[in-house]
Amino acid sequence: MGKDIGDKFCRWYTASVRVRYQESDQMGVVYHANYLNWFEIGRTEMIRELGISYRSMEDQGVLLPVTDLDMKFSQPARYDDEITIFTRMTAFSKLRIGYAYEVRRLSDEERGLLFQKQYSEEHELPGELLVSGSTSHVWVNREWQPVRLDKGAPGLYIALEQSLSGGGDR
Amino acid sequence: MGKDIGDKFCRWYTASVRVRYQESDQMGVVYHANYLNWFEIGRTEMIRELGISYRSMEDQGVLLPVTDLDMKFSQPARYDDEITIFTRMTAFSKLRIGYAYEVRRLSDEERGLLFQKQYSEEHELPGELLVSGSTSHVWVNREWQPVRLDKGAPGLYIALEQSLSGGGDR
Amino acid sequence: MGKDIGDKFCRWYTASVRVRYQESDQMGVVYHANYLNWFEIGRTEMIRELGISYRSMEDQGVLLPVTDLDMKFSQPARYDDEITIFTRMTAFSKLRIGYAYEVRRLSDEERGLLFQKQYSEEHELPGELLVSGSTSHVWVNREWQPVRLDKGAPGLYIALEQSLSGGGDR
Amino acid sequence: MGKDIGDKFCRWYTASVRVRYQESDQMGVVYHANYLNWFEIGRTEMIRELGISYRSMEDQGVLLPVTDLDMKFSQPARYDDEITIFTRMTAFSKLRIGYAYEVRRLSDEERGLLFQKQYSEEHELPGELLVSGSTSHVWVNREWQPVRLDKGAPGLYIALEQSLSGGGDR
Repeated sequence: MGKDIGDKFCRWYTASVRVRYQESDQMGVVYHANYLNWFEIGRTEMIRELGISYRSMEDQGVLLPVTDLDMKFSQPARYDDEITIFTRMTAFSKLRIGYAYEVRRLSDEERGLLFQKQYSEEHELPGELLVSGSTSHVWVNREWQPVRLDKGAPGLYIALEQSLSGGGDR
Repeated sequence: MGKDIGDKFCRWYTASVRVRYQESDQMGVVYHANYLNWFEIGRTEMIRELGISYRSMEDQGVLLPVTDLDMKFSQPARYDDEITIFTRMTAFSKLRIGYAYEVRRLSDEERGLLFQKQYSEEHELPGELLVSGSTSHVWVNREWQPVRLDKGAPGLYIALEQSLSGGGDR
Repeated sequence: MGKDIGDKFCRWYTASVRVRYQESDQMGVVYHANYLNWFEIGRTEMIRELGISYRSMEDQGVLLPVTDLDMKFSQPARYDDEITIFTRMTAFSKLRIGYAYEVRRLSDEERGLLFQKQYSEEHELPGELLVSGSTSHVWVNREWQPVRLDKGAPGLYIALEQSLSGGGDR
Repeated sequence: MGKDIGDKFCRWYTASVRVRYQESDQMGVVYHANYLNWFEIGRTEMIRELGISYRSMEDQGVLLPVTDLDMKFSQPARYDDEITIFTRMTAFSKLRIGYAYEVRRLSDEERGLLFQKQYSEEHELPGELLVSGSTSHVWVNREWQPVRLDKGAPGLYIALEQSLSGGGDR
């Protein structure tokens, strides 16, 4: 039947940050590298909502470094803004994971509605688009060598796959 | 006559950094966002070699924010590594600038040879490739609105164009 | 009558952060400089609770740089920890502001109780102490010259003084 | 007898950094937490001049976290400034190390003279003082427990002590 909202691959997950003083630069806007931290917060909180923590992944000896990324800057975030990060998983296999992101500035009203509504790939997202991007990741072990997740951390693989394939929505 | 080594568009410029402790993360490697700082150092030092400082650009009211970027991660840099950033300009107009980068780890011997040799687009670069990428930038004024550089800062435009079109090699 | 809990000079205000991946270093703990960001979040959120935003201060042309600070490190924070920053104002005049901080790791239960209880100087704070410290600040204008707040931004001075001297508790 | 220039405890060591764009904030100056990175560069380069690298210390299982620090801010550093960090060891034992720092902005001429002259505790240092401070450190193992350096890494202890007690100047 395809892309219903239960499909984690089309659902956007959300996380929020308040822009820190250090994240500003002398142009009076957020320094561009900082959005990568927010992307990381977006995927970490998405995974947490699925019931899994990055910290516990690493405790099992599985790391998930970035192999590729791209970013497109539309409008700058500024100090003290409340920012919403929309994160969506775009790929998941025994070898790799991919994510897409939109960093947006929402009105208080729009933020209040976030908890009432789920956004999927087809929806237009609320608020003003600041930055969009994507990251690709590969599973490696502590020696930085690629691992098949179903071999390297089978319990984690099953948990991720189950949470992604349906039922376990919050 | 094409791409001789005097053509700034095919020449790689170099800058070096020693990896700082804060740039490491708990994977024991450099956190991926930090390479964007090094890209910035690469383009700043390239422009400085052409005789122009970013600081003086901003003093003239012209800012150069990033509009797009991509990065590809091959091998991680580690704390205390000496890293060489190769930077090349790939586009220059009244409206925008583009750069390509390769972040590489060179042996002491390879670093010693850097000052004897100029690398152009066709050369294979020395050392081990860690990260490659590109950034695009657009000229804006302090109100964050696009400006044509030849109108907004004509002296700067002429200086950049002359240094790029030949003669003014260091 | 002295130090009742309405006295802002003895009340601890709280703010929370989740430790970010980038804030870890290769020792597997938070890099020590990052606690200064958390101190800043602590004082920003304290001021916000008093009804004033740092951003609006700067919009009025008044900056508040750090002149002195000290830090004492007891236990390290780690990636993904939920951290509570306790902040207390220790000095306020037309010329300067001082703050004290304790960064602590609380259990979920202890965090849940934070909203039911106010802590003053005499209380022992909940959770495990990680880092304590203090910062001193002076009011300056955009040219980085000292200003008397009652002259430079009289409305702000009155608002701060009133919120500190009582009534305006949330 | 006493404090001759060969005494490492009174000699200032120097290191230089160029201020990075990311280190600026929207006040147009360096964000205060960044000076702690420069302090770290100062002590790392001092130790390197003594013939020892922090990286090799960690490879021997000995970590050196900060336990206390203080900072005093006199003048702000700005983007693109060339900054000189003066570092001096103030304490060294089997249990702990202490350092003092002065971050200064030197003229080109003053920087040129750095290599001709050694500065000890009694000298007035050249250039404009921006930030001064001190850090204290304790030797710990990977489990973050205090170690006596002469037990935990005897070779390192002997090397450090010898280099500090004289002869081994570069």
